[in-house]
Amino acid sequence: MKVAFQGIVGAYSEAAAYKMLGSNITVQGIEDSHEVVNQVIERKCDYGILPVENSIVGLVDINIDLFIYQNIKIIGEVYLQIDHCLYGLKGSSLDKLKFALSHPIALGQCKDFLVKHQIKTMPFYDTAGSCQEILERNDPSIGAIAGPNALKHFNLDLLQSNIQSVKNNFTRFLLFTRLDEKTSLDLENSEKVVYKTSISFRLAHKPSALLTCLQNFAKQQLNLTKIQSRPNPHNPFTYYFFIDFIGKELDQNVQECLKELLQCCEDLKVIGSYPQSQFKIS
Amino acid sequence: MKVAFQGIVGAYSEAAAYKMLGSNITVQGIEDSHEVVNQVIERKCDYGILPVENSIVGLVDINIDLFIYQNIKIIGEVYLQIDHCLYGLKGSSLDKLKFALSHPIALGQCKDFLVKHQIKTMPFYDTAGSCQEILERNDPSIGAIAGPNALKHFNLDLLQSNIQSVKNNFTRFLLFTRLDEKTSLDLENSEKVVYKTSISFRLAHKPSALLTCLQNFAKQQLNLTKIQSRPNPHNPFTYYFFIDFIGKELDQNVQECLKELLQCCEDLKVIGSYPQSQFKIS
Repeated sequence: MKVAFQGIVGAYSEAAAYKMLGSNITVQGIEDSHEVVNQVIERKCDYGILPVENSIVGLVDINIDLFIYQNIKIIGEVYLQIDHCLYGLKGSSLDKLKFALSHPIALGQCKDFLVKHQIKTMPFYDTAGSCQEILERNDPSIGAIAGPNALKHFNLDLLQSNIQSVKNNFTRFLLFTRLDEKTSLDLENSEKVVYKTSISFRLAHKPSALLTCLQNFAKQQLNLTKIQSRPNPHNPFTYYFFIDFIGKELDQNVQECLKELLQCCEDLKVIGSYPQSQFKIS
Repeated sequence: MKVAFQGIVGAYSEAAAYKMLGSNITVQGIEDSHEVVNQVIERKCDYGILPVENSIVGLVDINIDLFIYQNIKIIGEVYLQIDHCLYGLKGSSLDKLKFALSHPIALGQCKDFLVKHQIKTMPFYDTAGSCQEILERNDPSIGAIAGPNALKHFNLDLLQSNIQSVKNNFTRFLLFTRLDEKTSLDLENSEKVVYKTSISFRLAHKPSALLTCLQNFAKQQLNLTKIQSRPNPHNPFTYYFFIDFIGKELDQNVQECLKELLQCCEDLKVIGSYPQSQFKIS
């Protein structure tokens, strides 16, 4: 089983793939998340995994848009606790660091620690990639911020772990395959599993359009776990909605709800129906 | 009148401030948007201006959060058309450029142009700042992407204008002051002006909580122009909602709606009630 993720080895997405599917998989790191989708659509990889939301910073917009627009479907979700670690070259130390390289979101989440230690930030494309970059720059005043699994891939010293300001920091990842694929994940006790369904749509140009849509969920006693809007780039300041609710696509009440939604919204897409995952607040 | 904005001279935010308030103002560029808010709260500046949404990439999350959490209120909005320009050192040319420096969002919006011309991207903190940075690096193979108003502030050549992939590209900026300030903007024909009101709240933990909230708007015939959710960082995967609707805070139906909202949501904040602005699609 081959799974594509965005980033290089040692990335949080790689850790999420292992957490979800076990260690008996082949992972393929890819530079760009649109290209992760292409690899799956072109059958070069069986599955792809992408982060869609962080509990502190919110949506990973470009990835949510890929789920709305591309011919892929979600088959699973997983929550990963984020533990940002500060790495330096072998033999370096925290008090010698002047700069930290990482993804801007990781830098922002570690701002308090970096200010306290007078370390200036340098934005980079991704977290694990910044580990590789500081090895190439070979300057002991530059450190990198990445996840704990980066340590086994790069010949660096771990200077400090858990440096983010807010400790309960989770990222939600979605596992996907081609839209027309019949595959689903093998699950133990699948009868007992709670399912979540993700859909996207545009509202019709009618008064109270969103209200009418939401009334259909209430009527079928379907609980929303998430509602997000994303801009429709072709029509400034109009939106797509991305909704998650508890229920399985083939359940009768879900089918009824989807039938009603076709009346009050446009471009309705069932992006996937998959086992709900949990996260544990410490 | 002194107006704080995030960035340095030549930034889109500076252009937005002039578009909204005319040229007879003093502008103050500040590195960090949280610090823009602080300058206003500490009365070092009269107003602040921050971008909150782009029609293609969506919310500027950190700025939306400042409006939800900080003691500021919105007193006006303005839409600015985004026209990304490619700049190079004096005497450089498009075919010699190997790299383009800019804010990651600007780089993403110009991806097609950059790929076509085989120009690699280098992320930087902001657009106008990247103009200053390439002057300091003094390497003719590195260009910068910024707005048209950057040209008058930096000694650079304009190599190409309008390089973004989607032409109808607008950013919405909000002008704000302290929450307890009585000021409002002087408006001609204020009787005829259409007002917009922005609010934020958390939903109570009750079934159909969002539906109940939205029913109050429908009951008072208030049209929503926007609904967005933002993560509540202290309680993973719960959300704040940010809603804009047409209406003035002191209108009777708005007052009725706000009274009802107090029953079905928590932390309700009226962020501001201000004249609606327009944008023109070309």
